[in-house]
Amino acid sequence: MQVTLAIDCMGGDHGPSVTVPAARQFLADDAHASILLVGLPASIETQAGALAREFPERVRFIAASEVVEMHDSPAVAMRSKKDSSMRVAIDRVKSGEAQAMISAGNTGALMAIARFVLKTLPGIDRPAIATILPNHDGETYMLDLGANVDCTAEHLLQFGIMGSILVSVLKHKERPSVGLLNIGEEEIKGNEVVKQAGELLRNSGLNFYGNVEGNDIFQGTTDVVVCDGFVGNSVLKASEGLAQFLIRLLREELTRTWYTKLVALLATPALRHFKQRIDHRRYNGAPLLGLRGVVVKSHGSADAFAFTQALQRAAEAARNNLVERIESRISTHMAAEGAFK
Amino acid sequence: MQVTLAIDCMGGDHGPSVTVPAARQFLADDAHASILLVGLPASIETQAGALAREFPERVRFIAASEVVEMHDSPAVAMRSKKDSSMRVAIDRVKSGEAQAMISAGNTGALMAIARFVLKTLPGIDRPAIATILPNHDGETYMLDLGANVDCTAEHLLQFGIMGSILVSVLKHKERPSVGLLNIGEEEIKGNEVVKQAGELLRNSGLNFYGNVEGNDIFQGTTDVVVCDGFVGNSVLKASEGLAQFLIRLLREELTRTWYTKLVALLATPALRHFKQRIDHRRYNGAPLLGLRGVVVKSHGSADAFAFTQALQRAAEAARNNLVERIESRISTHMAAEGAFK
Repeated sequence: MQVTLAIDCMGGDHGPSVTVPAARQFLADDAHASILLVGLPASIETQAGALAREFPERVRFIAASEVVEMHDSPAVAMRSKKDSSMRVAIDRVKSGEAQAMISAGNTGALMAIARFVLKTLPGIDRPAIATILPNHDGETYMLDLGANVDCTAEHLLQFGIMGSILVSVLKHKERPSVGLLNIGEEEIKGNEVVKQAGELLRNSGLNFYGNVEGNDIFQGTTDVVVCDGFVGNSVLKASEGLAQFLIRLLREELTRTWYTKLVALLATPALRHFKQRIDHRRYNGAPLLGLRGVVVKSHGSADAFAFTQALQRAAEAARNNLVERIESRISTHMAAEGAFK
Repeated sequence: MQVTLAIDCMGGDHGPSVTVPAARQFLADDAHASILLVGLPASIETQAGALAREFPERVRFIAASEVVEMHDSPAVAMRSKKDSSMRVAIDRVKSGEAQAMISAGNTGALMAIARFVLKTLPGIDRPAIATILPNHDGETYMLDLGANVDCTAEHLLQFGIMGSILVSVLKHKERPSVGLLNIGEEEIKGNEVVKQAGELLRNSGLNFYGNVEGNDIFQGTTDVVVCDGFVGNSVLKASEGLAQFLIRLLREELTRTWYTKLVALLATPALRHFKQRIDHRRYNGAPLLGLRGVVVKSHGSADAFAFTQALQRAAEAARNNLVERIESRISTHMAAEGAFK
């Protein structure tokens, strides 16, 4: 199915040196996709022209005159940079020229501009950001990872609904299982909000597993893990930190003496395969959920391989009607709520 | 300095088969320590007698008639099992016969009974549980890990004070650095409670570093990381799950073929050293803070080596006046608060 992506080529630590090669790879892999390359003419026009010649009628360059920087506050990005590459790319989703937008830029600014331009779906108070984490047999989708702190039970329910649909869309799974992150499996545990959220999720019609704990994320107990943005962010960053720490220790031990260096050399294929299985680049591309449009956040430090994953994920979400399916599910939920009132 | 520990010999997955050998090792290592072995006569009297003969005048057996099970609710453990080994051991701290108590049993019951028998220190609303996590250059102390959900800013400040004193006591560090777990380093980030806690910590006289994020825990950015019990519990369990997942994957890759098995054999010394550095048994022994007595929780699955670490940590805390130092620091803080009012 045809799909057009609007790419903020300026975002992220590496800008066009990553985003444009990733776009080329994406086009080479996906014959039915087109792209809009949004950026400063001086930075990408030449590359965009070359890409347009390589993939005729599938590439368009769109000029922007500003760039949202990592240190810009959401307010500054929104009010003072109305012609930023991020904003222009989101505008193209709003206008319908593109079906999804991808950026490796400033997360807070991306969320703020996307909310402002695209608006949230009816019934959604707070868009969420979902992240994908590896588990032994596949992937766990955790949300929220964004700035949704002080969530209500209803917010957590909405995260559960949106996460469930995200997994349906990206993994083609009928009824993904949903777990509620808590500090114990028993229903009586946790704070008041989480207890109420458990009640709502149990009565939601979702495939609700019940409470899960932190270790369940990497055991893959459920497809989706729901938590507020503070907890999700803390868990994600602690996990990234722990993985880096363990890999650093392993490297130190394997380079300690000439003997261990030799062993490490012999172990190269096994260690490479190990690293591939946990390669965070494969999990790059965090969808913003609850907006009237597909927006995918790439990690700022993504390389071309990682950014390509985010582009593929965005195309998959757009082709499988992520937004429409969330809208329909939320409106059904609201109608049921209304019927009870 | 002389110290006497009261050991709940019945707690944990393995009971006396772990706790008594650990007690023997502890006594062998520490010539100035005595122990009270608390348990069911049928289960430990013989072993206790043998130990008493091996270490004359340093071992006493104290009979209890009940055992708190892992599935007992705190209420049941407190009201219906007044002669449990857990309760009897805590009673000996209350009476002054022992200076610290250690149990690998049910955490909720331990906290409830300890609070009920020992009481909290003046000014402490909520005792906390601190855990010790490895970082590249040492250890990070994180609290709370217990059931303190829905904390106020004042609670988080108290955790900071208690954590700071814990590190002073166990690591003999003058002014341990304290970080506040948040979703960004900027002061404006986070929910209202965390923002207020940041204010309180900045004005507390502690060596307050500011906000830290999840990855800082394993980078060792600060000696102490403060968070509410929900976040701490989630981060701890996710970290345990991730570490298990990574080690399982590494093992799979190293046992995939005869070649990788051979390499793994050659890598045994390096891999063993790697495992030692992250051996969670070394970090066993989570102090309950804010009580009028030293209580240390061992992991339920601890083996004798791990349980010995918890005993050593309890002895160190008692010898260095953990309780008195927290009491003094909290009362100074309260007096300063009063002066402002």
